[in-house]
Amino acid sequence: MKNFISIKDIPSIDKALEVAKKVKHDRFAYKDLGINKTMILIFFNSSLRTRLSTQKAAMNLGMNTMVLNVNQDGWKLESELGVIMDGDKPEHLKEAIPVIGSYCDIIGVRAFASLDDKEADYQERIIQQFIDYAGVPVVSMEAATRHPLQSFADLITIEEHKKTARPKVVLTWAPHPRPLPQAVANSFVEWMKETDYELVVTHPKGYELADHFMEGVTVEYDQKKAFEGADFIYAKNWSAYNDYGQILSKDRSWCVDTEKMGLTNDAKFMHCLPVRRNMIVSDSVIDSKNSIVIEEAANREISAQAVLKMILEDL
Amino acid sequence: MKNFISIKDIPSIDKALEVAKKVKHDRFAYKDLGINKTMILIFFNSSLRTRLSTQKAAMNLGMNTMVLNVNQDGWKLESELGVIMDGDKPEHLKEAIPVIGSYCDIIGVRAFASLDDKEADYQERIIQQFIDYAGVPVVSMEAATRHPLQSFADLITIEEHKKTARPKVVLTWAPHPRPLPQAVANSFVEWMKETDYELVVTHPKGYELADHFMEGVTVEYDQKKAFEGADFIYAKNWSAYNDYGQILSKDRSWCVDTEKMGLTNDAKFMHCLPVRRNMIVSDSVIDSKNSIVIEEAANREISAQAVLKMILEDL
Amino acid sequence: MKNFISIKDIPSIDKALEVAKKVKHDRFAYKDLGINKTMILIFFNSSLRTRLSTQKAAMNLGMNTMVLNVNQDGWKLESELGVIMDGDKPEHLKEAIPVIGSYCDIIGVRAFASLDDKEADYQERIIQQFIDYAGVPVVSMEAATRHPLQSFADLITIEEHKKTARPKVVLTWAPHPRPLPQAVANSFVEWMKETDYELVVTHPKGYELADHFMEGVTVEYDQKKAFEGADFIYAKNWSAYNDYGQILSKDRSWCVDTEKMGLTNDAKFMHCLPVRRNMIVSDSVIDSKNSIVIEEAANREISAQAVLKMILEDL
Repeated sequence: MKNFISIKDIPSIDKALEVAKKVKHDRFAYKDLGINKTMILIFFNSSLRTRLSTQKAAMNLGMNTMVLNVNQDGWKLESELGVIMDGDKPEHLKEAIPVIGSYCDIIGVRAFASLDDKEADYQERIIQQFIDYAGVPVVSMEAATRHPLQSFADLITIEEHKKTARPKVVLTWAPHPRPLPQAVANSFVEWMKETDYELVVTHPKGYELADHFMEGVTVEYDQKKAFEGADFIYAKNWSAYNDYGQILSKDRSWCVDTEKMGLTNDAKFMHCLPVRRNMIVSDSVIDSKNSIVIEEAANREISAQAVLKMILEDL
Repeated sequence: MKNFISIKDIPSIDKALEVAKKVKHDRFAYKDLGINKTMILIFFNSSLRTRLSTQKAAMNLGMNTMVLNVNQDGWKLESELGVIMDGDKPEHLKEAIPVIGSYCDIIGVRAFASLDDKEADYQERIIQQFIDYAGVPVVSMEAATRHPLQSFADLITIEEHKKTARPKVVLTWAPHPRPLPQAVANSFVEWMKETDYELVVTHPKGYELADHFMEGVTVEYDQKKAFEGADFIYAKNWSAYNDYGQILSKDRSWCVDTEKMGLTNDAKFMHCLPVRRNMIVSDSVIDSKNSIVIEEAANREISAQAVLKMILEDL
Repeated sequence: MKNFISIKDIPSIDKALEVAKKVKHDRFAYKDLGINKTMILIFFNSSLRTRLSTQKAAMNLGMNTMVLNVNQDGWKLESELGVIMDGDKPEHLKEAIPVIGSYCDIIGVRAFASLDDKEADYQERIIQQFIDYAGVPVVSMEAATRHPLQSFADLITIEEHKKTARPKVVLTWAPHPRPLPQAVANSFVEWMKETDYELVVTHPKGYELADHFMEGVTVEYDQKKAFEGADFIYAKNWSAYNDYGQILSKDRSWCVDTEKMGLTNDAKFMHCLPVRRNMIVSDSVIDSKNSIVIEEAANREISAQAVLKMILEDL
């Protein structure tokens, strides 16, 4: 395994889950793998879980880690080609990336969607430049259109909690005061499609995700109908894909509450966090015994470590 | 020992001082204790000494460390319960804390008093939520009402420099351009009361500390009288407790200068740092041979390491 | 070797190059040297390469590292003596430096020229206070007038790429939208003068560097003439030294382009980075096979490690 950008990079779901299981059973058993190896984590955007869990995963494997907050520790980086650099960005990714690559063995990158330029975002121009120029493996810590470490952790969590071989998993949109990328939702759909779970996506009209993610996936515009018989409710806000980056609704009736959870098959509640309480989900649901958001977040360490282990083994 | 929030958490002053002595004698003798253990240091506020000394202490013990600057590396965290989170805080402490706890073995937290809400500050609502939700031991790196790692370092320093069994220790208020919390002063009083030193507190009228800290402690409003025969002068500014968070005086005659030090028993000068020269203390005093502020700061590594050692042994 | 502030601190160029070669051959061969040793890296200014390469170098040697971003993680530090500290700077370097020194074995400092106060800059008041107060070795990660880790890396790079014993090395000024310090240019001249290379400096009139750096160095105001027969073109912007900190020219005809490179002896192109494309150098030159800017940056890890190795051996 070289890079980790999407589900296409893992050998198979079964193999990835097997590695995750081993890692979780004894997270310090593979410390020799990372000796004299360094991971640099680069953040173009804020991060709490991803920052800590990925660093922890690398240290579990015996690696050294360095963290760079772009714009804050360093400076703004230019990503356009051919530009005369007389503005506020003193360095180009074409230099910054290979230089960073020269100081480490694996690069982790977080670079959110701009939500301004749909084409640039969906071409994944930033993370693609990292792959092109880094000279070392690149791990997405959430890129413009996908958040695969999150989706892998989601998968691990569902596997640990499912009561039937083929659970019904519902991805539900919920309201949020700010426009958010589609990355978590896209990625969740992409990973769930590779399982044999029953997947249903529910959202208000206008919030359709991109076709190439949604091909073959059931959409149910009636949230309550979608919830019926569900084993897992995965809540997430995203801004519109078609009216790119727009907020089309702040309808609080989409908030996941106890009444709606009552329609499910005693479903577990999931969210990638950070979550806005009483916007996305009511206190009563997230504080209930059916909420597994903390275990889900804890599995971020496991998904990151499984990914890093597979990459280290192939260095 | 589980958490370290106040002097009540240590087994006894004698035991704590004994551990500190051992640690100072050979700070790398206990590196096995921290193998495969991780400490996360969370800063809601700026830090220089606490940041570096606590991280160093953890590394001396063989631990891995990760640092998170809230609001800067991550985002603002909501601490109120029951709120509809449609404002500028995208995550609640009820999620953030257990998630952080899931990635580490010990959490260190710095969260200053707001100085806005006396009740919230003196109930220690932030650090108390960490204790309630973390699932792992919590170490205060200065909370709203106490700074116990500082006070423990102060105690170690006095023990190293005292010339008599029962030195006279004077805590003196001094002026400062900004309103500061009472945490260092409260905590210093709390620790000194547990020793058999003679403790005198001096400050302008109106700067009385909270009763439950001051019970049984001598207050002398005449600074010069307080200094007579003192073996240690501990200077510190704080804002008013009764007129909560207010600056009642900027009277520079309270600055600790050579003349006042002349009234003492050749006293050592102490301050927790950072210190405003020529506001709190004159250049002549802080640059004199009697100033032990650097040794005092250096002992922050020792107090932190002693605390972490005791916690690691009880994990 | 104690401090590393300028070329005067290394035993000799030959010895330094020999250490660099050993380190590059096996960068993990000296991990025992740094066991139980800690380096603190202090940044008064932004940094990408220096931050990562110096941290990496220290970790290669088995050291622990801690990073402090002044003004951001901590607070503003006062550097003037005798001042009444009632402004926005809560701590003086006279306290901050020895305290930081007490938590580590080596301090690295980045503190750029102010470009406001020529005398303070050229007296190196900040880094000199670190040397005076730290109590441990101090390594410049770029100070007001020199950037010796960069110059050492430049030297290593030229040694690796030179085709003749005495290559012609040309330092050329190039335009930039912002006023930059003279540190990289000063330091490059200082190091090149110690070699037996042929050194030529070219810049528009008014951009003369300080006399004590330029003594005995050839200046050629005609850029094209300077380029003739060159083996290495080293581009860099700097603001004026005489009209201190001023931008006297933004003349884009000084940009290093393919036509000018055609005048050289198939010269390699060098720059310390970050570089403004199509201001300092055209895309065509920096993207050509003759550009060695990435190897040059990669050698920052080597120069830092060689310096730290020599310091650790003399601790």
